[in-house]
Amino acid sequence: MAKNLSRIRLLRKKMSENNIRAFLSASPVNVNYISNFSGGDSFLLVTPDKAFLLTDSRYTEQAREELISGVRIVLTKPNITEVLANLAKKLHIKEFAFESESFTHGQFLRLQKGVKKARFAPKANFVETLRQIKDADEIKSLRLAINSARDGYFALLKKLRAGATEEQMATDLEYLTYKHGSRPGSFWSIIGINERAALPHAPLTKKKLPSKCLLLFDWGGAVNFYCSDTTRTIFLGKPDPLMKKIYTIVYDAQMRAIEKTRPGIKASELDFAARSLITKAGYGKNFGHSLGHGIGMQVHEMPAMNAKSTAVLEPGMVFTVEPGIYIPGKGGVRIEDMVLVTKNGYEVLSQSIPKKLEDVCIEI
Amino acid sequence: MAKNLSRIRLLRKKMSENNIRAFLSASPVNVNYISNFSGGDSFLLVTPDKAFLLTDSRYTEQAREELISGVRIVLTKPNITEVLANLAKKLHIKEFAFESESFTHGQFLRLQKGVKKARFAPKANFVETLRQIKDADEIKSLRLAINSARDGYFALLKKLRAGATEEQMATDLEYLTYKHGSRPGSFWSIIGINERAALPHAPLTKKKLPSKCLLLFDWGGAVNFYCSDTTRTIFLGKPDPLMKKIYTIVYDAQMRAIEKTRPGIKASELDFAARSLITKAGYGKNFGHSLGHGIGMQVHEMPAMNAKSTAVLEPGMVFTVEPGIYIPGKGGVRIEDMVLVTKNGYEVLSQSIPKKLEDVCIEI
Repeated sequence: MAKNLSRIRLLRKKMSENNIRAFLSASPVNVNYISNFSGGDSFLLVTPDKAFLLTDSRYTEQAREELISGVRIVLTKPNITEVLANLAKKLHIKEFAFESESFTHGQFLRLQKGVKKARFAPKANFVETLRQIKDADEIKSLRLAINSARDGYFALLKKLRAGATEEQMATDLEYLTYKHGSRPGSFWSIIGINERAALPHAPLTKKKLPSKCLLLFDWGGAVNFYCSDTTRTIFLGKPDPLMKKIYTIVYDAQMRAIEKTRPGIKASELDFAARSLITKAGYGKNFGHSLGHGIGMQVHEMPAMNAKSTAVLEPGMVFTVEPGIYIPGKGGVRIEDMVLVTKNGYEVLSQSIPKKLEDVCIEI
Repeated sequence: MAKNLSRIRLLRKKMSENNIRAFLSASPVNVNYISNFSGGDSFLLVTPDKAFLLTDSRYTEQAREELISGVRIVLTKPNITEVLANLAKKLHIKEFAFESESFTHGQFLRLQKGVKKARFAPKANFVETLRQIKDADEIKSLRLAINSARDGYFALLKKLRAGATEEQMATDLEYLTYKHGSRPGSFWSIIGINERAALPHAPLTKKKLPSKCLLLFDWGGAVNFYCSDTTRTIFLGKPDPLMKKIYTIVYDAQMRAIEKTRPGIKASELDFAARSLITKAGYGKNFGHSLGHGIGMQVHEMPAMNAKSTAVLEPGMVFTVEPGIYIPGKGGVRIEDMVLVTKNGYEVLSQSIPKKLEDVCIEI
């Protein structure tokens, strides 16, 4: 409770600094972050001295259980537009600042048309910037999510057998992760055997596991709504020489970016640190995606971790560092860890999942 | 392949009828439906004689594998706005009809600002209305999804033991569903013991299963991207008399709505059929949600199945029928089946999951 009460205070402070008298959220994650209500299809309206959860009858019981004190429940009857029109009238709201990245354009048009006495002013990443800095409770949940994913992965490795399909391994890996304390996060596992690992977002297939191959796992879980996201590339049997060489390059690039992490450095500098090493090794064109992404209640959130990012790192930020090299038709290597910015440097939250070359060469 | 080619033809026909020269989709499900590309973060642009998938390097390999013929891959570099500005110039596009329910308002603002020579005209539910009518392949996938969910549920019932928590049962039910051929659909299981079943969207808890109780399961899987969504409420041991009475009312209400299903009837009439029976029995206020929802590649899609819906049923439509009665603090009953509108009436696709009162009273 206390944690969310302080969040709504922070939000109101930011509203005041931005001269906002009414802030409207449609993002389930932002609503949860501020109000502690974890259901869907709902809106949160915050004013300097009041707060309302606009929801429907499916969620009223849950809202009563979960909401922080001071947030009133309003049923969205007959619809959100009329409810907001009434609230605008009653509370003398002339302008709603609304989340332009969670409202669809269609929702905006309906509100603008139906709520005649108030304007709707788009506001991007307002709560998202608050969410960038994780407190101790949030970091604890992230650790629990990572540890359950790790334990699920360890359990899977123990039972890996040649002949299992990518789909079957994914189902097992997810189950074992959840058995170790997670609930599903917001993305599905990527499991790629050999050339399938060359697709950064490979869809699962019925391809069967050979006893000697390259095998990529990109998976995660969630605890208390906080997600994990890690990738390991492993070798069954003796590694293919090209893939072994690529593994070392990716590993070095990842470590270089991780070791540069500290408050005050730009996200783009970390991207450059990894990318320049890979480019120098001749594989720049085979690393097409970003270095990583912020992570928390969403698998992808702020700060942006790419060459164009303007983010400057601060203590409490958590993000992935996941360079990769992909050789179409042959294979790919990606190594992904979750990194926390500390007061003086960094902590690799997922460090207990082995990644040294000798630790990822296994026999089944 | 053939199936998606006919879909893009249908889309172009509809574009022509609506005088649309360029249609832009940002919905991953609509992109998949029309183009067969199943990745994310991508856009599909369709003109009368050309089609483009606008995507990034993470997805190019996958796009080459999956796309129907005739769709060109364009990298969204440096960003979607500049790519669309270039395409508008090259193809002399003066107006993009875009999906106003899948583009955020923020995306719209960036496009409108950055693509100076073209207008952006909002278009709601353009592909969604095509998706309402399922073809034979889609119905086959829906059946497979339902059957895997059924078999997972049967397997769970066999191993139910007092003391298991709602969370543990959910993890097991999902795993067993996926083991029987599904991949995860787009919603998490709802499992409610006794008074937890009074929350239509109950979050899972660590509440332990007693050997005598009411137990609600709302779960699903997905096969070839087609989702299942079913609910069963069961009794362990002798049912509580009030809940038994309520079960019969919900059952009768559900059957009444199902049996009215045929081409030409309004969705709102089915809602009324179930709701009026529940209201007459004195529980109208305890049935706050819609009768159901269309289902296909999304768990919730068109047609709307509620009192205000203007939908008229047609052969090939598939939706859920899921009345419920919820008594806060005591318990709740919901029964949910998936129903296909046939040429002359209906077929309950999930009929092999038992729901008669005598079949849902079990001993563990």
